Amino acid sequence: MIRAGVLGGTGYAGIEVVRLLLNHPEVELCRIVSQSYAGKKIAEVYPNLMGVCDLTCSALDVDDIAKSCDVVFTALPHGASKEVIPLLYEKGLKVIDLSGDFRYNDPEVYAAWYGEPHSSPELLKESVYGLCELHREEIKGARLIGNPGCYTTCSITALAPLVKAGVVDNRSLIIDAKSGVTGAGRGLNLPNLFCECTETMKAYKIATHRHTSEIEQELSLLAGEDIILSFTPHLAPMKRGILATCYANLKKSYTEEELLSLYREFYEGDPFIRIYEAGTLPEVKHIAGSNYIGIGLVVDQRLNRVVVVSCIDNLVKGAAGQAVQNMNLLFGLPEGMALEAAGMYL
Amino acid sequence: MIRAGVLGGTGYAGIEVVRLLLNHPEVELCRIVSQSYAGKKIAEVYPNLMGVCDLTCSALDVDDIAKSCDVVFTALPHGASKEVIPLLYEKGLKVIDLSGDFRYNDPEVYAAWYGEPHSSPELLKESVYGLCELHREEIKGARLIGNPGCYTTCSITALAPLVKAGVVDNRSLIIDAKSGVTGAGRGLNLPNLFCECTETMKAYKIATHRHTSEIEQELSLLAGEDIILSFTPHLAPMKRGILATCYANLKKSYTEEELLSLYREFYEGDPFIRIYEAGTLPEVKHIAGSNYIGIGLVVDQRLNRVVVVSCIDNLVKGAAGQAVQNMNLLFGLPEGMALEAAGMYL
Amino acid sequence: MIRAGVLGGTGYAGIEVVRLLLNHPEVELCRIVSQSYAGKKIAEVYPNLMGVCDLTCSALDVDDIAKSCDVVFTALPHGASKEVIPLLYEKGLKVIDLSGDFRYNDPEVYAAWYGEPHSSPELLKESVYGLCELHREEIKGARLIGNPGCYTTCSITALAPLVKAGVVDNRSLIIDAKSGVTGAGRGLNLPNLFCECTETMKAYKIATHRHTSEIEQELSLLAGEDIILSFTPHLAPMKRGILATCYANLKKSYTEEELLSLYREFYEGDPFIRIYEAGTLPEVKHIAGSNYIGIGLVVDQRLNRVVVVSCIDNLVKGAAGQAVQNMNLLFGLPEGMALEAAGMYL
Amino acid sequence: MIRAGVLGGTGYAGIEVVRLLLNHPEVELCRIVSQSYAGKKIAEVYPNLMGVCDLTCSALDVDDIAKSCDVVFTALPHGASKEVIPLLYEKGLKVIDLSGDFRYNDPEVYAAWYGEPHSSPELLKESVYGLCELHREEIKGARLIGNPGCYTTCSITALAPLVKAGVVDNRSLIIDAKSGVTGAGRGLNLPNLFCECTETMKAYKIATHRHTSEIEQELSLLAGEDIILSFTPHLAPMKRGILATCYANLKKSYTEEELLSLYREFYEGDPFIRIYEAGTLPEVKHIAGSNYIGIGLVVDQRLNRVVVVSCIDNLVKGAAGQAVQNMNLLFGLPEGMALEAAGMYL
Repeated sequence: MIRAGVLGGTGYAGIEVVRLLLNHPEVELCRIVSQSYAGKKIAEVYPNLMGVCDLTCSALDVDDIAKSCDVVFTALPHGASKEVIPLLYEKGLKVIDLSGDFRYNDPEVYAAWYGEPHSSPELLKESVYGLCELHREEIKGARLIGNPGCYTTCSITALAPLVKAGVVDNRSLIIDAKSGVTGAGRGLNLPNLFCECTETMKAYKIATHRHTSEIEQELSLLAGEDIILSFTPHLAPMKRGILATCYANLKKSYTEEELLSLYREFYEGDPFIRIYEAGTLPEVKHIAGSNYIGIGLVVDQRLNRVVVVSCIDNLVKGAAGQAVQNMNLLFGLPEGMALEAAGMYL
Repeated sequence: MIRAGVLGGTGYAGIEVVRLLLNHPEVELCRIVSQSYAGKKIAEVYPNLMGVCDLTCSALDVDDIAKSCDVVFTALPHGASKEVIPLLYEKGLKVIDLSGDFRYNDPEVYAAWYGEPHSSPELLKESVYGLCELHREEIKGARLIGNPGCYTTCSITALAPLVKAGVVDNRSLIIDAKSGVTGAGRGLNLPNLFCECTETMKAYKIATHRHTSEIEQELSLLAGEDIILSFTPHLAPMKRGILATCYANLKKSYTEEELLSLYREFYEGDPFIRIYEAGTLPEVKHIAGSNYIGIGLVVDQRLNRVVVVSCIDNLVKGAAGQAVQNMNLLFGLPEGMALEAAGMYL
Repeated sequence: MIRAGVLGGTGYAGIEVVRLLLNHPEVELCRIVSQSYAGKKIAEVYPNLMGVCDLTCSALDVDDIAKSCDVVFTALPHGASKEVIPLLYEKGLKVIDLSGDFRYNDPEVYAAWYGEPHSSPELLKESVYGLCELHREEIKGARLIGNPGCYTTCSITALAPLVKAGVVDNRSLIIDAKSGVTGAGRGLNLPNLFCECTETMKAYKIATHRHTSEIEQELSLLAGEDIILSFTPHLAPMKRGILATCYANLKKSYTEEELLSLYREFYEGDPFIRIYEAGTLPEVKHIAGSNYIGIGLVVDQRLNRVVVVSCIDNLVKGAAGQAVQNMNLLFGLPEGMALEAAGMYL
Repeated sequence: MIRAGVLGGTGYAGIEVVRLLLNHPEVELCRIVSQSYAGKKIAEVYPNLMGVCDLTCSALDVDDIAKSCDVVFTALPHGASKEVIPLLYEKGLKVIDLSGDFRYNDPEVYAAWYGEPHSSPELLKESVYGLCELHREEIKGARLIGNPGCYTTCSITALAPLVKAGVVDNRSLIIDAKSGVTGAGRGLNLPNLFCECTETMKAYKIATHRHTSEIEQELSLLAGEDIILSFTPHLAPMKRGILATCYANLKKSYTEEELLSLYREFYEGDPFIRIYEAGTLPEVKHIAGSNYIGIGLVVDQRLNRVVVVSCIDNLVKGAAGQAVQNMNLLFGLPEGMALEAAGMYL
C-alpha cells in the first residue's frame, strides 16, 4: 500500500484528493494536514465523509509526514507550498504539488507572471509538468510533479494536436474558458458568495491570468516555436467544470473528419480522452465528477477557422484526479486506477 | 457474476441504477431496455458513459431478458411496470421494481391511493417492501421487491425509532419534505423546465401525495396501530436530494441525548445510517451522490416537541442505491457492496 | 418631496431600499451611509445603478442626516442600530428600522431572545411594529417603526386570520419556512459561499431563531392569549424568497372555502395580499421581486388539519418593500405607491 | 393612450412585453393573444400578474386587433409571424415583430440562413431593423419593425464603434456569447429541463446560428464592406442575461483609453449604453432585469488584440425592452420611457 498525505486537505482541491484517495485500492490515506482545522476530524469539516474517513486533521510536521508517507499531495495556497516542498523533497518523499510553483521550465517565466523570483530554481529543474497525456514518460521518472492548473489542462489538451501537426496559424489562437465556482477556492471573498455568483456570468483577468503562461509554455514546446495567445477566463454559476471554446485559423482547408483524425492519433491509448464524433460536442455534465476530458470541434468553412470545444471537471482532471493519475504513474500502477468511473450526468 | 438488466434505463432513476451497477464488482450489466431509445447506444443518450459503457438500448423482449439476466431492475413509468413484472417473475427472475406497484401489503390501500384496483393482487402478496433497514430478513428470502419511494425512505427512517419506541403522540406527526427536481423525472412537463424551477420553491399535492400511504403503512406496522399523518412535498431548485423536517409531540419530556440513543439502538449495525450528534444536523450536500441517510434532531423543550431532520439522495438511497442494496441482500452479498463511497460535498 | 436617507445602504436589505426609493415619485434619496464603502460611489459598489444613481456613500454624520433628511431607513447590523437610532429620533426624524431592535412590545421578550437587556426601553415604547396589514393605524401616527423580519411577515400573515377567528388549536401551530440566501446578508461567512449553498438545503436554528418571538408576539395579540409555536427556518439555493408551510389543527371541521372566506375578510382592502383560490397555491416565483404576499391553503380532511402556504420576497415585503410601505403610511401617501408593480416570474 | 396588443403573449418574450407595458404610463394593454391559453386569464398562466393584470388571453382575430389596438407586438414562433404580420400591417397597425422574419435588408440573406425564401419580400422592404442605437431615425418613420435578436443586440453594440472607426481587422472578429436559458423559450424540449441545464454549460450551433447573419449585416453596413465572422453561442445555467466576449485584432496599437473614447463618442446621448471605465468590466447581474447594455474592454498589448465584453438582459434589451424602446420611438415618446429603472443586482 502506498502511504499518502494531503497538505491543505480542507480546501476544495485538497478535499477532492482526499475523496479520490479514499476510493483507491492501493493507497492508505495517512495524514490530512490543515492549518485552519488542525485537531478537528475531517468528517466534521466535510460531513460527507462521516463513517467513511476517521482521520483527524493535523498541523504541519515535516518529520512526521516524512516518516508516515510515501507520497504527499500539496494543495496549499500559493506561497505556502514553495516553502514546505523543498523540505519534503529533501526527505525523499514523492511530491505532487497542486500549486503553480513547480509548473515551469523557466524560472524567468515564473517570475514574469507571478511578480517575484522563484524561490527554489534548482528544485524547479527537478520538477516535471504533470500533464500526463503530454509528459507521461518524464513523470514516471520524477519525484516532484507540478500538477497543471484547471484552465490549463482543458486548454492545452484542446489545442495540442493542432499545434503539434502545424495545421493552424499559431498567432491566431484564442481560448475563451468558462469555469465553475469551485475554481475560486474556499476563501471568504465577497465575489464567491452565493448571491454574488448565481444568475450571472463575468469575465475576469483578461490577458493577465497566470494560467496563460502554462498554456503558452506547453503549446510552444509542441510547436517548436514561441506561441503567445489570448486566454479569457469566465466565472459561470455552477460548482464544477470548465468549458473551453478555442479558436484557431487553419493554414489550409480541412474537413472536420481530417482534424478529428489528428486528435485520435495524438491521443491514441490515452484512457481519459474522449474525442467526439463530428456533429457532436462535449458539455460540462458529460464529464462532471470524472477524470475524463471531452473534446469536439467544428470547422467554419466560411472563415477557414476551427472551433474546438473541450470540457473537464476542474476539481478532478483539473486538479485532484490528475494528481492521482500522476501518482499512479509515479508508482507504476495502471494510469487510470481508481479514476475510471463515469461522472454524474445528474 | 450476477447478470443484470435495467428496464426503463434511460429515465433518471434507471440511469442511476446503470451508473451504480457499472461500478459493482459482482455484476455484469447485460441489458438496458428503453422504449424511447431502443437501438441507440446508452452513451449517446447519456454521454457521461462514453468509453465506460458500450451497451445499446434494446426494446423489451421478455424471453431475451429471461435468458440473459438473473435480476431485473424495473424503472418504468407507473402502469408499465405492473404489466411486465408478472411476466418476468413467472420466468423465475428476481425483480426489483422501482415503481409504486409492489410496495403495499394491502391491495385496498393501493386502490385507494392509486385510484384503481391492483392488477396483480396475488403477486403483491409475494413482494416485499424493500426498505432494507426495516425488512432486511424478509428481503433476503424474496424474489420480488417493491423498492420504496424517495420521500418515503427519508420520512420513514426519520420517524421509525420514535414510533417504535412509543415516545411520540402518533396523531401529531407532520412531515415537511423538500425534494430536488430529479424527483420529477425526465418527462417533458412545463413545470420541470429550468426557467420554471430555478430561483423558486413550491409545495404540491398537499395531503394527497401517494407516498403518504407508504409512510403510513410502515410506521403503522412499527407502532402496532393505524397511523395517519401529514405529508407535504416541496420542489426545491436543486438536482438531487431530499430533506425531510419531521415534527412529533413527545408523550413526556426527553433530552436530545435520550432520543438519539433510541436512534442509535434502532439502527445499530446499519451501514448507511448516520445519526448526528446533538447540536448538529444533516444537510443535503452531506449525502448527495451517496447511499447514506443523515438523521439529526432537536427537542423543543418549550413545546415538548421533537423536530427530526433527515436527508437522502433521492436518486441513490431514494431509488437506485436502495435497489442495489436490495440486490446485494437478495444475492447474499455484503449489503453495502459498491455503495459505500462518500458522496460529493461539492 | 420626501427627503430620505438609508443607513447601511450597501447591505442586501439596504440596497433594496435604495432601489425602491429611486423609483418612488415622491422621494428624493439624499444620503446613503455605509461604513465600509464611505467615499465610494454607490454605482461602483452596485453597478446595476450606473447612470441611475449618482450618490456617493458617506460615513455616518447624525447632524448631517438630521439636516438633509425627513426619514431615515436603518439597515444596520444588529447592535449598530440601537446606538444610532436614539440620536436620530431625538433630532425629530422619522425612523424606519430594519433591525430587530424595535420590534417588541415587551423589553423582557427582547432580552430573552437577544441575550441582553434592551438599551432603549423608553424608545421601545414609542416604536410601532411595522406590519402594515395588522398595525396600519398605529403606524400612521408613529415616528419610529420596527420593520418586521422576513420570516416573520410571511409567517404572521399566513396564520393571522385563523388565530384571530379562533378556529385553530393554538398549541398546534408549526411553521416550516424556506428562505433564499439573501436572507443571510452580505457578510463573508463560509456557509454563504456559492459552493456551500448551491445544490443543497439545510435547516438551522430550530426552536431558537429570534423571529420566533416576533411571530408569537403578534399572533398572541390577535388570539388574546399567549401563543408559543414551532418555527423552523431552512436555507434554499435561491437568491430571493420565502415560502412558509404552516400547520394548524382545526377545532372543528371546515371546508377550504370557509377558511378562505376568513382570509378574504381579514385582508379586505389590503393591496398586497393575494388569497389563492382553493386548489391553487402560491410559489416563490409568483411574488419574487414584488411586495405581494401570496397565501393559499389546503384542508386535510383526514386529520382535520389545515396547511397554509405563504410566499413573500424576503428583500421586498420581508424588508425594503415593507419599509417603503411604512414610509408611505407615515407620510400620508397611498400605501402602495411605487410598490405595486408585478414581480418577475422569470 | 397608446392601445397595444401582444401576440404570443404567453411565451417568455411575450410575457416580458406584457410586464413592461403594464408599467408604461402612456400605454393601455388591450389584448393578449395566445393560441395555447385562449380563454384563460393571463394571471392564471403567470400568477405574478395576480391583481396587476386582469386580461384574458384571446385567440387571434385580426379584425378585432385592428379595431382595438394602435400597435401590435408579435412574439410568435418563427413561421407564425410571417403569416399574420402582412394582415396586421395592411390594416394600418404599427407592428413590432420579435421574430427573425423582418430583420433583413436582403431576402437572399434571409433565405440562405432560414432555408426557405422569404414569404413577404415587399414587406421586408418596408421594415426597419429595430436596433435603436443604430437606426433611430429610420425607426421613427417606420410602421414595421424587425426587432433584433438577443445575441445580436449584445454582439453588434459591442463591436460597432470599432468597426465603424476602422481600427480593427474585419477578418479577425470572433464573438463568444453565453446566454441564459430563457433564450431557449418555453417550449417543452428535453435540453431545457432543469436537470439537463443546471450545473453545466454547452456550446451549440457553432458557425450556423441564424443570429450570425444579423450581426454580419449590421457590422457590414457600418464597415462599408462585407464582414463575415465567428459567432459561438453557449447556454449557461441562469435564467436571464447574455455575456458576449468579442475578439478583434487591432490594425495598430491603441490604448484602452483611446478605444473607450471611440465608444463614448459613438454612443453619445444613448440612454441605455453604459461604457465601463478601463479596468472594470460589465457582468450579467449589472444589467439583469433592465434595458441597459454594459460594455467594457481590455487591450492585450502582447497580441495587439482587443477583447470587448458586453452584457444585456436577453429578455429586456434583447427582446421586450428593445421592442418597447422601438414603440417609444414610433410614437414620438421619450425613448427611455418606462425602461430606465435599474435592474436587480440580487
